[in-house]
Amino acid sequence: MDRLELIKLIRTKKSFLCIGLDTDMAMIPGHLLESDDPVFEFNKAMIDATHDLAIAYKPNFAFYECHGSKGWESLTRTIQYIHSNYPGQLFTIADAKRGDIGNTSKQYAKAMFDPSSSGLDFDAVTVAPYMGEDSVRPFISYPGKWIIVLALTSNQGAADFQYFQGRDKKMFEQVLETSSQWGSPDNMMYVVGATRAEMLTEVRRIVPDHFLLVPGVGAQGGKLQDVVKYGMNRDCGLIINSSRNIIYASNGKDFAEKARAEALKMQKEMAALIRLC
Amino acid sequence: MDRLELIKLIRTKKSFLCIGLDTDMAMIPGHLLESDDPVFEFNKAMIDATHDLAIAYKPNFAFYECHGSKGWESLTRTIQYIHSNYPGQLFTIADAKRGDIGNTSKQYAKAMFDPSSSGLDFDAVTVAPYMGEDSVRPFISYPGKWIIVLALTSNQGAADFQYFQGRDKKMFEQVLETSSQWGSPDNMMYVVGATRAEMLTEVRRIVPDHFLLVPGVGAQGGKLQDVVKYGMNRDCGLIINSSRNIIYASNGKDFAEKARAEALKMQKEMAALIRLC
Repeated sequence: MDRLELIKLIRTKKSFLCIGLDTDMAMIPGHLLESDDPVFEFNKAMIDATHDLAIAYKPNFAFYECHGSKGWESLTRTIQYIHSNYPGQLFTIADAKRGDIGNTSKQYAKAMFDPSSSGLDFDAVTVAPYMGEDSVRPFISYPGKWIIVLALTSNQGAADFQYFQGRDKKMFEQVLETSSQWGSPDNMMYVVGATRAEMLTEVRRIVPDHFLLVPGVGAQGGKLQDVVKYGMNRDCGLIINSSRNIIYASNGKDFAEKARAEALKMQKEMAALIRLC
Repeated sequence: MDRLELIKLIRTKKSFLCIGLDTDMAMIPGHLLESDDPVFEFNKAMIDATHDLAIAYKPNFAFYECHGSKGWESLTRTIQYIHSNYPGQLFTIADAKRGDIGNTSKQYAKAMFDPSSSGLDFDAVTVAPYMGEDSVRPFISYPGKWIIVLALTSNQGAADFQYFQGRDKKMFEQVLETSSQWGSPDNMMYVVGATRAEMLTEVRRIVPDHFLLVPGVGAQGGKLQDVVKYGMNRDCGLIINSSRNIIYASNGKDFAEKARAEALKMQKEMAALIRLC
């Protein structure tokens, strides 16, 4: 999915909501556990209940890998379900935080983007920048695919290295400045946590045009209004992720209905805040 | 496997060689492609041919994930094969470069270390430090397991951010100083590339006692003698990885035999260089 198609989705749905599929067997409704693939059944119900309110889904790989190869099957079925049932209507993000030497990143890119090899066909993948240019570049070379580089994350540990002070800038500013030269706003985005909304002004100074994937609204304490105030650009330029607040709104038989109600609340807030040229 | 057991392995085998299982379908002998699981068959042959010369195996996750859930099955079979056939004789490293917020890293730790959940039972996992303390800590809490933090990698892109100059130190020095407070030389190691052998003196100044996992000897140009000269400590303190040089020594029917010959060459070099208190 290219930038124009993504902006069109946001315009049509009046939403820039991404739903994080951090699907945890310990948190999903008990009646689903009887199925052969509870993780997939949960995701399917979530997607069917919210697909018109969200523009993106973001499976968090850790929650699949903890079930080994069976977890990867649930993940594959989820992505194939989205592509078959809602073609062109949803942006898909592999929240995998990968990154390795060039030769290895090339294989990771194949895993995320080449369905003939892995069965997966994501639109985007999150990548850690620590290993530099050759760890990032293999992901950019797929036409129509996106790389989302970690810049400033929403967790407490972000302070340890991302704020490391150099001579005239911090580490995360160096990451933004350097890595934005490798791709363009048409194939790169950045992760910037909502818990750091006040830093968005600084982020926008360096990357005014890039989309930002913003986790941390809701459960982690970030405020939607603040993110919009400091981070929105003329193309919206924001994808706001919410996971637990939506997908675990209830763990009863009404779980999908309650998730829809939460997603609708966020979509309405977004519709009121959205500005598009 | 704890530190004493690891040192005992090094002493017994007179080796600190790790073999990287970067198993690529395009590089393995043609006759294996007829099997149901060529990746596992290749790994099995590799392990059987070299298990007495190497102390560790390091599957590189990208080369499995590019085959989706089937790749994760090959990976699982490989690790289970090592544990069943060579119990206590080999250290296993998940080269996965993971790292995410605490809640998510906890699931990744389960994926790597908890066989009842994922089928995988690695001794150690490689982790990217960019997200800080809470991204690292969940891996340390497993008794007898290790976390291997990226410090200074062997690729060209290492220069982009790892050498970022702060007021009185570089980024990788900050990573070593800060993260070494989170664990101990009994549960943490660091990745330091052999292509930066001259930097090992600086690394050893900050972490004199930790084991270092050293990629980049051979194909990437690093020299074993230099790594030993600058990086060895009283417990050896080095695990040297070699992948392509060994596993792709031949792609004919003699592939396992030729791999053994290459591994033996390295083990002999190591036996001559080893110093243990």
